[in-house]
Amino acid sequence: MLKEQIEGYIKRSLTDLRYRHTLGVAQTAVTLAGVYGVDGAKAEVAALLHDIARDFDDALLLEMCHKYGIAPDEPEIAVPALLHGRVGAEIAAERFHISDSEILDPVRYHTTGRKNMTLPDKILFIADMIEPGRDFPGIAELREAAFKDLDRAVLEGLNSTIIYVIQRGMAIHPASIEARNDLIRKNMELRML
Amino acid sequence: MLKEQIEGYIKRSLTDLRYRHTLGVAQTAVTLAGVYGVDGAKAEVAALLHDIARDFDDALLLEMCHKYGIAPDEPEIAVPALLHGRVGAEIAAERFHISDSEILDPVRYHTTGRKNMTLPDKILFIADMIEPGRDFPGIAELREAAFKDLDRAVLEGLNSTIIYVIQRGMAIHPASIEARNDLIRKNMELRML
Repeated sequence: MLKEQIEGYIKRSLTDLRYRHTLGVAQTAVTLAGVYGVDGAKAEVAALLHDIARDFDDALLLEMCHKYGIAPDEPEIAVPALLHGRVGAEIAAERFHISDSEILDPVRYHTTGRKNMTLPDKILFIADMIEPGRDFPGIAELREAAFKDLDRAVLEGLNSTIIYVIQRGMAIHPASIEARNDLIRKNMELRML
Repeated sequence: MLKEQIEGYIKRSLTDLRYRHTLGVAQTAVTLAGVYGVDGAKAEVAALLHDIARDFDDALLLEMCHKYGIAPDEPEIAVPALLHGRVGAEIAAERFHISDSEILDPVRYHTTGRKNMTLPDKILFIADMIEPGRDFPGIAELREAAFKDLDRAVLEGLNSTIIYVIQRGMAIHPASIEARNDLIRKNMELRML
């Protein structure tokens, strides 16, 4: 079965720490899928796959981009690790014959977000931040928000990511800004209804 | 003379507070122009003009966009005050018959920044933040940086702007991200030489 196949693969190929993180993300994603009424099996598979390219070094990520015809954006050239979602999605598609965008897109955009994030995108994005193994200031509030107001949680998650990146003097991925502006605009429109 | 014409116009049309701020920006811009070897007269005229549309209300800014064929971006639709640079540049061009991009571009981009900021762009951007009337935590360091390392100062200024906007839950202008990523990339390349 697909899930067992993937679990075997990630157990062999990820570091122990990354493997435990991945199981935590899968568990959280399944719970969130239940809360928000999306397919839990797909959310679980996406979560199991999300970091399969996370331990690749820069050279390997860029080589994989070449192989799969991915054109890195400017911040991705500066910080190739940002590419692990896009590369991971292509590897998942090839190795496990997955073509479902409800699985591949969340994997692809789980680090940066994107404009018009779907529910499965948002669930993986936030599950990655709040899985039981994570600990950082404000995580209790973020966990609570994730189960009550997914958009608010994703917005807070994007804010933390952007501030983290600024504090380290790194480039900000434009997709994160598009994701954030889009959430703000839609929520303003909702409040105006 | 152009400078006196503009000074008369802004004295009549700006609030007292804005007028004093503008004179402070002009003084700082001229000093910075001397430090970085650009035309001080142009830097002064750009500074005198930079906020001529700053006190326009949202409706008037959007009406001026229509008049001048400016297409507002998404964050500008949400926060029309962001348009005061682009609108101000068009008014300056029309009223004072200015066509010099070393004057108009700094006015146009002084709030958001842009990709490939020129020296005159950077000087007005930072003069607007550090003029003698400004006071906020970290301004002493920012003033010092402005006279020693303009790119570093603009980067810090963009960082503050982005964090300010995040804390207020407002949309981030993509031009600020492009400006910031561009500065980081160029400075990384310089360090690698």
